[in-house]
Amino acid sequence: MRLALYALLSAFLLIQPSRADDALPSWNDGATKQAIVQFVERITSKGSADYVEPADRIATFDNDGTLWAEQPMYVQLAFALDRVKALAPQHPEWKDKEPFASLLKGDLKTALAGGEHAIAEIVMATHAGMTTGEFENIVLEWIDTARHPKTGRRYIDMVYQPMLELLKYLRANDFKTFIVSGGGIEFMRPWTEKVYGIPPEQVVGSSIKLKFEMRDGKPVLVRLADIDFIDDKAGKPVGIQMHIGRRPIAAFGNSDGDLQMLQWTTRGDGARFGLIVHHTDGEREWAYDRHSPVGQLDKALDMASSQGWTVVDMKHDWKTIYPPE
Amino acid sequence: MRLALYALLSAFLLIQPSRADDALPSWNDGATKQAIVQFVERITSKGSADYVEPADRIATFDNDGTLWAEQPMYVQLAFALDRVKALAPQHPEWKDKEPFASLLKGDLKTALAGGEHAIAEIVMATHAGMTTGEFENIVLEWIDTARHPKTGRRYIDMVYQPMLELLKYLRANDFKTFIVSGGGIEFMRPWTEKVYGIPPEQVVGSSIKLKFEMRDGKPVLVRLADIDFIDDKAGKPVGIQMHIGRRPIAAFGNSDGDLQMLQWTTRGDGARFGLIVHHTDGEREWAYDRHSPVGQLDKALDMASSQGWTVVDMKHDWKTIYPPE
Repeated sequence: MRLALYALLSAFLLIQPSRADDALPSWNDGATKQAIVQFVERITSKGSADYVEPADRIATFDNDGTLWAEQPMYVQLAFALDRVKALAPQHPEWKDKEPFASLLKGDLKTALAGGEHAIAEIVMATHAGMTTGEFENIVLEWIDTARHPKTGRRYIDMVYQPMLELLKYLRANDFKTFIVSGGGIEFMRPWTEKVYGIPPEQVVGSSIKLKFEMRDGKPVLVRLADIDFIDDKAGKPVGIQMHIGRRPIAAFGNSDGDLQMLQWTTRGDGARFGLIVHHTDGEREWAYDRHSPVGQLDKALDMASSQGWTVVDMKHDWKTIYPPE
Repeated sequence: MRLALYALLSAFLLIQPSRADDALPSWNDGATKQAIVQFVERITSKGSADYVEPADRIATFDNDGTLWAEQPMYVQLAFALDRVKALAPQHPEWKDKEPFASLLKGDLKTALAGGEHAIAEIVMATHAGMTTGEFENIVLEWIDTARHPKTGRRYIDMVYQPMLELLKYLRANDFKTFIVSGGGIEFMRPWTEKVYGIPPEQVVGSSIKLKFEMRDGKPVLVRLADIDFIDDKAGKPVGIQMHIGRRPIAAFGNSDGDLQMLQWTTRGDGARFGLIVHHTDGEREWAYDRHSPVGQLDKALDMASSQGWTVVDMKHDWKTIYPPE
């Protein structure tokens, strides 16, 4: 009985909201951490004018550059390039066809000179034509083994430790955490639960069309070479509405692609929170903003102060960047 | 201390899975109820070969004819017709324009003689052009007051009591319950949490396109007169994948519109459950199947036995139909 009682008490203690000073150890003390903690305490204090019911505690997170590193190129682009190489033996015609010919020679610059059209060709050649189950397996195999060219670490180990803590801290305070990314929804879902604690149904992203078919008497969903939705910029509030159906009270991003999500979130009634991760740490990560082709942060940075958005200065606000090796 | 201990014990008891014989009081004892209970017990018994982790306990429910009545016409069509009447003063041109002219004269048959085109005209005139917030308010006001032509009850009181119990029973066993309906996603979301205990982010349905805009300095999402997605028939597995991103282990429907959802769900690996509500009760509800223009059930009924789907005989399996007035 004594043991049973102990188990009950432990279970009870476990469901108490985490205390912030324990919950965010990788954040240096200062205005940024304080802004996060104060917001959470305001909206969770019963009796406070800003109190928000648990069901309405929706928080949305961009992925690339907000939850994991996006330099020197988006991880999904690295995936696509690896897939082109893997598929090349089945496509002898790629030797003479751009953007594949240049890609296979390792000349990324020429390959991408074709702009959006070239990128679409690469994405469709590598992301479409298979079933959803087949694609999931391809992604899982790649993400478990592929390594970052600079750090030599797996991409899923290059997630931001302070953001992992923030996700947990919010969930401990009854937030439902969602990813809202310009990246492919089916590229993220196979691993977001394990890496971020975010289940597939809480991932919003860009998508290609699917088609239901019976194949040899078995139902499958086939991935078509046809864009369905681009979950970026003004698409983010649309993606949020389509998938979540209610307005977040907190949003976290790092680039101009998150500007409209931040507006949609923070211009609602009641207490709201918007945060931008500013990449200021050229030593431990990368330093970039207004002129970066990847994760450009320009307009949203200008607007942050007037909109009351909290800006993370990665160099000064984060004690560590990645989880320990 | 004694009181605190009592509170702890009560809290602990509350999170235990409900016992089925208490949880489904509106279901008559028999093969149907037994099939439901046996499935749930199989997949929740630790150590059973069919055990399913809580995170993978995804159950999808059709709405019209599965969770609430759909006769003599889909509730959303009744909503659209009421909206045409309400909007008519702002549209003097409708007096001479089909399908509106016939509708306003009360001649539904002539109005709908235009087929899909007529329905699309009605839907777009009543469901598009406003912001998502405005539409939500219109739906909420209507659903709180509109009454069924035959029973005189509000539509949201014509939900099936046995299915409400089933939803709760599944959730008590750690299922995540979703609606997957051909109906409009934004027509359902404003009230599904209150009526079914299903939050907006767990509602999948048909949709029109949305556009993000700044209006007078405030961000809005405008509903466009442009179909985005039809969540019916072969669209249902697609809607499930887009929104949920994993395959349900249990699906509940009532018509051929649910056939592919049932196939997609029950042809996966491991223990699976498919159920069809067969409307056999002409006295307490309506009796219809193969030849009904609303909720036609023909092919799926033929396939039920070979596919192992459980068929609810509403007249014999359900003690009550609607919640008490």
